[in-house]
Amino acid sequence: MNVSIVGATGYGGLELIRFLANHPHLQIESLHTSSQFGRSIHEENPHLMHMKDKLEAIDPEKIAKKSDIVFLATPSGVSSQLISQFSDLDLKVIDLSGDLRLQTPGEYERWYKKEAAPQSILEKAIYGLAEWNAEEIRQSTIIANPGCYPTATLLGLAPLFTEGWATGSDVIIDAKSGVSGAGKSPSVVTHYSEMNENFKIYKVNQHQHIPEIEQQLGRWSKNTQPISFNTHLVPMTRGIMATMYVKLNRQTSTAELRDLYETIYDKHPFVRIQPLDHFPSTKQVYGSNFCDIGVAYDERTGRATIVSVIDNLVKGAAGQAIQNANLLMGIEETTGLWNTPLYP
Amino acid sequence: MNVSIVGATGYGGLELIRFLANHPHLQIESLHTSSQFGRSIHEENPHLMHMKDKLEAIDPEKIAKKSDIVFLATPSGVSSQLISQFSDLDLKVIDLSGDLRLQTPGEYERWYKKEAAPQSILEKAIYGLAEWNAEEIRQSTIIANPGCYPTATLLGLAPLFTEGWATGSDVIIDAKSGVSGAGKSPSVVTHYSEMNENFKIYKVNQHQHIPEIEQQLGRWSKNTQPISFNTHLVPMTRGIMATMYVKLNRQTSTAELRDLYETIYDKHPFVRIQPLDHFPSTKQVYGSNFCDIGVAYDERTGRATIVSVIDNLVKGAAGQAIQNANLLMGIEETTGLWNTPLYP
Amino acid sequence: MNVSIVGATGYGGLELIRFLANHPHLQIESLHTSSQFGRSIHEENPHLMHMKDKLEAIDPEKIAKKSDIVFLATPSGVSSQLISQFSDLDLKVIDLSGDLRLQTPGEYERWYKKEAAPQSILEKAIYGLAEWNAEEIRQSTIIANPGCYPTATLLGLAPLFTEGWATGSDVIIDAKSGVSGAGKSPSVVTHYSEMNENFKIYKVNQHQHIPEIEQQLGRWSKNTQPISFNTHLVPMTRGIMATMYVKLNRQTSTAELRDLYETIYDKHPFVRIQPLDHFPSTKQVYGSNFCDIGVAYDERTGRATIVSVIDNLVKGAAGQAIQNANLLMGIEETTGLWNTPLYP
Amino acid sequence: MNVSIVGATGYGGLELIRFLANHPHLQIESLHTSSQFGRSIHEENPHLMHMKDKLEAIDPEKIAKKSDIVFLATPSGVSSQLISQFSDLDLKVIDLSGDLRLQTPGEYERWYKKEAAPQSILEKAIYGLAEWNAEEIRQSTIIANPGCYPTATLLGLAPLFTEGWATGSDVIIDAKSGVSGAGKSPSVVTHYSEMNENFKIYKVNQHQHIPEIEQQLGRWSKNTQPISFNTHLVPMTRGIMATMYVKLNRQTSTAELRDLYETIYDKHPFVRIQPLDHFPSTKQVYGSNFCDIGVAYDERTGRATIVSVIDNLVKGAAGQAIQNANLLMGIEETTGLWNTPLYP
Repeated sequence: MNVSIVGATGYGGLELIRFLANHPHLQIESLHTSSQFGRSIHEENPHLMHMKDKLEAIDPEKIAKKSDIVFLATPSGVSSQLISQFSDLDLKVIDLSGDLRLQTPGEYERWYKKEAAPQSILEKAIYGLAEWNAEEIRQSTIIANPGCYPTATLLGLAPLFTEGWATGSDVIIDAKSGVSGAGKSPSVVTHYSEMNENFKIYKVNQHQHIPEIEQQLGRWSKNTQPISFNTHLVPMTRGIMATMYVKLNRQTSTAELRDLYETIYDKHPFVRIQPLDHFPSTKQVYGSNFCDIGVAYDERTGRATIVSVIDNLVKGAAGQAIQNANLLMGIEETTGLWNTPLYP
Repeated sequence: MNVSIVGATGYGGLELIRFLANHPHLQIESLHTSSQFGRSIHEENPHLMHMKDKLEAIDPEKIAKKSDIVFLATPSGVSSQLISQFSDLDLKVIDLSGDLRLQTPGEYERWYKKEAAPQSILEKAIYGLAEWNAEEIRQSTIIANPGCYPTATLLGLAPLFTEGWATGSDVIIDAKSGVSGAGKSPSVVTHYSEMNENFKIYKVNQHQHIPEIEQQLGRWSKNTQPISFNTHLVPMTRGIMATMYVKLNRQTSTAELRDLYETIYDKHPFVRIQPLDHFPSTKQVYGSNFCDIGVAYDERTGRATIVSVIDNLVKGAAGQAIQNANLLMGIEETTGLWNTPLYP
Repeated sequence: MNVSIVGATGYGGLELIRFLANHPHLQIESLHTSSQFGRSIHEENPHLMHMKDKLEAIDPEKIAKKSDIVFLATPSGVSSQLISQFSDLDLKVIDLSGDLRLQTPGEYERWYKKEAAPQSILEKAIYGLAEWNAEEIRQSTIIANPGCYPTATLLGLAPLFTEGWATGSDVIIDAKSGVSGAGKSPSVVTHYSEMNENFKIYKVNQHQHIPEIEQQLGRWSKNTQPISFNTHLVPMTRGIMATMYVKLNRQTSTAELRDLYETIYDKHPFVRIQPLDHFPSTKQVYGSNFCDIGVAYDERTGRATIVSVIDNLVKGAAGQAIQNANLLMGIEETTGLWNTPLYP
Repeated sequence: MNVSIVGATGYGGLELIRFLANHPHLQIESLHTSSQFGRSIHEENPHLMHMKDKLEAIDPEKIAKKSDIVFLATPSGVSSQLISQFSDLDLKVIDLSGDLRLQTPGEYERWYKKEAAPQSILEKAIYGLAEWNAEEIRQSTIIANPGCYPTATLLGLAPLFTEGWATGSDVIIDAKSGVSGAGKSPSVVTHYSEMNENFKIYKVNQHQHIPEIEQQLGRWSKNTQPISFNTHLVPMTRGIMATMYVKLNRQTSTAELRDLYETIYDKHPFVRIQPLDHFPSTKQVYGSNFCDIGVAYDERTGRATIVSVIDNLVKGAAGQAIQNANLLMGIEETTGLWNTPLYP
């Protein structure tokens, strides 16, 4: 099966290329960008020097003729505009941006400060949280690939919300990300001398992933209240950790809590529940599609501490997108993604 | 006035040396360690190659003869044993370890898993949170210098607790530290290849700074409930950020909240309240004694977000210790500490 | 075909596991260590949490019964002692340590300060510089896998020495390595707070890779003189750059020099010669088996500047070892190694 | 005495502010930039939040009225244009850029690709290598403050060239710098995700500091030949190491070589010669004005290895500029500069 990538030169696009280059069933047919076309992919990406592929302009009809799936790895505000051109063609679309994730155009416009995609498209788009929506994903033609923070957060909170252990209120998510999450464009914030040996908080209480998380929590539990959610930049390239503090509606123990998680994720190879009293570090999933989760119950406060880590560019972007493509195509979801984390 | 440093070769001791070398009124009289004595301080610390001082054994009587103040910059479990030898001598003691901070021996033993200092000493020790206990510090002879996390946390929470804005319950503190907080001894956790490009959580719900924070909050507000407090290691050497989520007992706005902080810290030069809607990064206090604080009120959740940063080795250790020494000696508290942060 | 790894828990061993887990023809049969046996590999290596393999003691006879190839990924001084037990068994051995690389026991003892392997073994061991010794490697049973610095250096110098462009004297190699090259054992040098934001030189003029490089250069050119070679630690985990300054015995141009390199490495997929006036950075080969080389001729000095980068744990260790295993087994040398570098 | 800074918001300017804020005799009178004037210095530099100074436009006459010295901390190509406006006023000028360092306009234009400063100015400008030109500096009114790489290199090579130990040919300088040397403007090269966990070479054989080094070596020794000089970016913010390989015209030993250095630098407090067989790391001079040097003689090759480290923003820029200001003003050269390196 053939796939095309729109936005091939961003970090999400490059990561798709890295995995697809070794995928046994999905073949890269073409790479597209809004600039640079005509040049070879390796010219500004010397790590790809062995690849000969040329960059092409974005032409939906041409893409649809040759490809079965198109990945849109474009910044927010782009696929909302492009999507209509793709949706009428016989082509499955996996959108890595935030443009198709919020079902209500108003919510998108409030948090993204940009024009939303058409309502009709938003209604068709399936939220591609692969471990939880696999059935719907398999039937869909448009996938809204989840954000990096929501992936780490939701995989961590799902057992508590789907099983009714969380009260729904009193959910605090303190999230930290490597700098690649800020993308490839140079800026003062991501200038090496500014970011190195530094730890920053950003978008305090205003991150656009807040409504995405609340939307999914609301599907799982009607009692869901607004969450506290903050994001930080860590002086490292890859990795997300979400440290979550959740009021439970019952007394429990760390062991019992861990059992819940292990049972629920038993059939999901990419989610690895840590041994009792062990907590994951971001590097143990580096470059891989794993989401590692550790849990504790704090008797002093009645809160659960849930720690969830992913590689923001893999499980938080390109990896989950390929996992969704596997589901769409009816093949084993780990295909082409079962690589060992890079360590150390 | 003369000072001695016990534990001169640890990171806290070395940082004391850095500041005291330029202090106009406090003169380093002698440097002490439990090993290495007879050697020059610069032998294993080449950044001090221009210093000729020799390391000496720990002899309280000899120290008391020559010095007015002794700094104990030793690991936890050491000054609790040494302190009695010092306390009868005419000598002021500033202890940088955690040994004298908890007033109840049982609490110390529960969280530190070590034998506590004598009750009589604990009763005399004043908690050296300089911005809040200056009067008592000036009168005291034994100072328990606050921990790095408690300093960032308490300076951030004080206005809410002393002014009665916090409910006392629902306080979540998510703290992050540079690796120098783990000290100078090599270990697997702090091995470069393990820690670099990694973000780790540790001592989940079990950090020994929890009772220290709760003890001080309890002094400020009787309604104080157990806090949720977790600590992380950031791949950088210096810096602490505490991100705090606090339920308020009133509706307010970010501007009003900021005004509270600015008013309260108006006379305290080391605490710099950020402009409206600005939040501090750890690097902006690098190598300095500043504590920078940014605040926000989140109307969606009714929680305040308080962000407090310090350099863990300065305001979180040696800097605050010298600030306390200045207070003890009756000199201006900024003396020898008014240096500009190293940036970038 | 089955393989075993001795020294499975060091960085070299773990990297072998990472690649072999996805190798289509080489199957990990067993993992061995000198300690920790009986435990699962994932216990101290949480990135491998999805693997169930148990660590076993080192038993050459048992290994030989089940495996076709054994990789020795042990520290220097270990395989020199173990090798005799393996060499009589019907088993191919690939040794990643330095123990079998120097053909003269006296040279080994002078530079390594340890007892050399038996002369008879050293005579049988083939130096596994895969791009240059492929024919001998295919015929051999014992491979001395090259060191990390020698691999980067020799692949960079080979065209000049084999084609007679270098004078043989006046060769300066200034090499830099990520910290993983120092191995997995914590030490003061590799303690995070010491190594972070630091750049260090070590083993000035005394690195044990000097005789290994000179030995191979001497095979290529009889005029070879002692080289100047120094090594530095870079505050990063992976990657080696060798910057080399070589007096040429002819006038040339950068373009002509580059042509020489491109012609020579034309058939070698893992060596990627950079475009004219481009030079490689270490990250462009991160996690991959590539060696990227850039060249310049400096008319002012008559010296060539050769810049060669590898991932020290892949092309400089486990990757080249598997490349050698592929050659030994008569399969395509890129098998299981053709992964895209991790970027960014 | 009053000083002004032109280019106050670049890294060089900010570092001048850091040191001058604590200088007992030099008082910051005014801060100037080509943009941003009217704003407070702390607005984009939150580490200076306690400072109230406003940025002003660049007005040479106004500066001359109030100040005794002006520091030009501007990018190359700026002070060559500004300098004439300053030179007729009764004002001492210390230029931190490269514009006044090369005495021949043609050389400047060849290496900098920009228009040179007027010949008459270049003739008056004294090269401010403080340890070697103190007498001329004291008499001058225009100082060309040395470049960061030349400072580390020349302090390392001076003993060999002034004492006639170097042959003059066969000098290879392999230099490495932290990223702050690239300045404050964001770019692809210095984007965090590109530079982190990466080691890069740049301007191969073409760095504009080559003629600056050769010019000074030529003053010391008539036999000086073109040098090989290359520069690399290290994933850290501050620090330069120059590793130098120099053919000697005599046989010697490491001890004898070290004695030469110790004797020559005996009266120069900022140059610290390392103990025998010890070599400096960049971090041991972090944030300080020290230049630490280690030496070795390699009998195998007849070359000396000289290792010299500085903080590029201090001894390589602002610190040496203040040292020059101290000399100009006839005060002790260490005044305001005798701070301990930040460690760790």
